[in-house]
Amino acid sequence: MRILVALGGNALLRRGESAGADAQRKNVEAAAEGLAAVAHEHELVITHGNGPQVGLLALQSESCREVPPYPLDVFGAESEGMVGHMLGLALRNALPDRDVVTVLTEVVVSPDDPAFLKPSKPIGPVYSAAEATRLAQERGWTVGRDGGDYRRLVPSPEPNAVAELRSLRVLIDSGALLICVGGGGIPVTLDGAGTMRGVEAVIDKDLTAALLARRLDAGLLLMLTDIAAVQLDWGTEKARPLHATSPEELRQFDFASGSMAPKVEAACRFVEATGRRAAVGALADAERIVHGDAGTQVASRDGGSPSA
Amino acid sequence: MRILVALGGNALLRRGESAGADAQRKNVEAAAEGLAAVAHEHELVITHGNGPQVGLLALQSESCREVPPYPLDVFGAESEGMVGHMLGLALRNALPDRDVVTVLTEVVVSPDDPAFLKPSKPIGPVYSAAEATRLAQERGWTVGRDGGDYRRLVPSPEPNAVAELRSLRVLIDSGALLICVGGGGIPVTLDGAGTMRGVEAVIDKDLTAALLARRLDAGLLLMLTDIAAVQLDWGTEKARPLHATSPEELRQFDFASGSMAPKVEAACRFVEATGRRAAVGALADAERIVHGDAGTQVASRDGGSPSA
Repeated sequence: MRILVALGGNALLRRGESAGADAQRKNVEAAAEGLAAVAHEHELVITHGNGPQVGLLALQSESCREVPPYPLDVFGAESEGMVGHMLGLALRNALPDRDVVTVLTEVVVSPDDPAFLKPSKPIGPVYSAAEATRLAQERGWTVGRDGGDYRRLVPSPEPNAVAELRSLRVLIDSGALLICVGGGGIPVTLDGAGTMRGVEAVIDKDLTAALLARRLDAGLLLMLTDIAAVQLDWGTEKARPLHATSPEELRQFDFASGSMAPKVEAACRFVEATGRRAAVGALADAERIVHGDAGTQVASRDGGSPSA
Repeated sequence: MRILVALGGNALLRRGESAGADAQRKNVEAAAEGLAAVAHEHELVITHGNGPQVGLLALQSESCREVPPYPLDVFGAESEGMVGHMLGLALRNALPDRDVVTVLTEVVVSPDDPAFLKPSKPIGPVYSAAEATRLAQERGWTVGRDGGDYRRLVPSPEPNAVAELRSLRVLIDSGALLICVGGGGIPVTLDGAGTMRGVEAVIDKDLTAALLARRLDAGLLLMLTDIAAVQLDWGTEKARPLHATSPEELRQFDFASGSMAPKVEAACRFVEATGRRAAVGALADAERIVHGDAGTQVASRDGGSPSA
């Protein structure tokens, strides 16, 4: 089976841990072990988040007084390099017989996407309310709550098309284990004259993963994070995990924006469009989730006919 | 004809200019115009330097007190993302009918390479003698002269193998215009157990370009920079350009290390090993250099039999 795996950026660069290279490498190697176990049985295409990584690159760039800060599309590209390299090395070491390759991927968004008017995607470190207010004034950032802390918020437009799709297919058909559309892809717009330009945004990696899973005819969209399952009434006494569910059921509830909501939305879109399965769960449970024995399994209520 | 193009990192982020994104984008777009003219007639595989870009990323990382600085292999990967994205966009806009794709590329070096004992590759901004001395003490850098200024020097080991070679071939055969081995490739070592690890180095992009040109059976190794031709007695009153030359002739002279010497060495290696042509010259003359009408043309004295 072809599986599109979306790996959380927070699983690689964890909140509360050092944001240094050693900590990230350790997390990446643990992730690669889990993915390698699945890769022995299935064809994997791997994407990853980049919220913490883009935030780190933006912070490093802002710290350097000598050079004006670079735009977010370039940080997206840099983060695809950073994570692609670390994850690619770890996967190659875990799967020495496989060709592992990372493709820099651009994803087209609409310049008229309403997300540009309402930054919503948290990136980078967490700040206190006072720090966040100061940074918003000093740097022109939008800041907002993410859990109990404050973080920088950036626009997160809808992914419309993967620019390198043909080359991704060529590589998959060649048997390569592919890392691509990191961080949801480097955001670009396409104007009336066909000119492509980078834009200041971070695309949601789960929504891009759902798009790419459709375009690549994946049999399973697998979203791996640090939470064992999607929960209803998360963070309350009534919290309970969802094990087997459907888009119809999921669409009745609200989930935390910026964390679980995009995963639920991505799962619904993929299942609704293809009639195939999506799953959300913990990286450590990857094999069991693929077998249907762990995580939240999302399937059509009617057993599999696509609605579109 | 298949042409391996090596584009100087200094042609994209120029000394004395702003190191900001806008200046780099402008230079990248000019480079893409020149390359697009050649791409109409020939099959191009493009690589680029990353000395200024890695230096910028290192500077940004060092400026950020909150997070320990990342190692050079990760900056190499980030620079492949940064330049690959900007150059890829510009080439796609210049060649709207082509699939342009950037592959993150790792290049294997020996952990016993003597270069690790003698850092020689200049990266990043230029400093005065006093600044350079201070930075060497504060950050444990090796610094040294590069022209009239001082810069940080890092190890530049020999490129031995391109990790993603099979996937690069697959993409070229599919008709894609490929950007790869940026900055000479992300430096990695391979231990006795087959484990690959990143190392603190910057590989010379011209030497990697010569290696890749051989592995991909390129008909021409084209090294583009901001100088019209290789010069003998460069910087003196006796300076004179070399138009048509051979490895035998070139090997009789010394060239400036860190700038022209690696280009000359790369040209000699490629011509000696394949009997095919190498050329060095200005980006603005790319088409005329390909036709043999500009730059320094390096060919076998005996007309083309490979020595190895």
